[in-house]
Amino acid sequence: MSSHRDLPQHLPSEIAIDALRWHADGLLPVIAHDCRTGEVLMFAYANRAALEHTRRTAWATYWSRSRRALWLKGETSGNRQRVVGIRVDCDGDCLLYQVQADGPACHTGRRSCFSWQLLADGSVVCDLPIMEQPA
Amino acid sequence: MSSHRDLPQHLPSEIAIDALRWHADGLLPVIAHDCRTGEVLMFAYANRAALEHTRRTAWATYWSRSRRALWLKGETSGNRQRVVGIRVDCDGDCLLYQVQADGPACHTGRRSCFSWQLLADGSVVCDLPIMEQPA
Repeated sequence: MSSHRDLPQHLPSEIAIDALRWHADGLLPVIAHDCRTGEVLMFAYANRAALEHTRRTAWATYWSRSRRALWLKGETSGNRQRVVGIRVDCDGDCLLYQVQADGPACHTGRRSCFSWQLLADGSVVCDLPIMEQPA
Repeated sequence: MSSHRDLPQHLPSEIAIDALRWHADGLLPVIAHDCRTGEVLMFAYANRAALEHTRRTAWATYWSRSRRALWLKGETSGNRQRVVGIRVDCDGDCLLYQVQADGPACHTGRRSCFSWQLLADGSVVCDLPIMEQPA
């Protein structure tokens, strides 16, 4: 759309992070995508510190809006996400973490947070099971 | 996290749409995911009318925040997205459209909007080509 400001083909390192369209609250939405299975695992947010931590460590890091704190995914549960690529959309206002994840992404113990399906009759059902974790 | 309000296992049709955690502006974020290739194609928003239109027609419909109008994807370009499933995340605040899309999702002519990669040196480059469309 004409109102979009597209990212150029190349943004040099000095300006790339600044050129992203950070929201007024300092956040960008982040989609985590399993690069091996193609599954969409979760949706969260990152601020600059979370993105920098992800880049530096290659462990998926988000900003927890509820806790108002940096959120290293899996720090407590152990279900970390190894980030093998970070992608940006055409207008620079959404991030995609391409991850390898062996455990569940969802705090309910399911592999993906998107485990609920909206059915044709308008009802919503959870149709993906809780993962069995290795002992 | 304890501050999350998880969706129950089953939401009957009378209350399912209302039970989603619509933002104050009446929108929910939507991820469009190619169900055949596993690619994440785009990120946008939907209001209730967009979700209802998507459900009723099985064509991906969003809310354009820039135009402040319902946005039937591909209405102008012809690059529609056939929706074969709609999923909801665990706390009901993000939608996933599972789509079949033959043409580009991105207005730049690329298959995915996530065609830019954040490299290790901090620069961002566009690494996916514009799609050749059939004549």
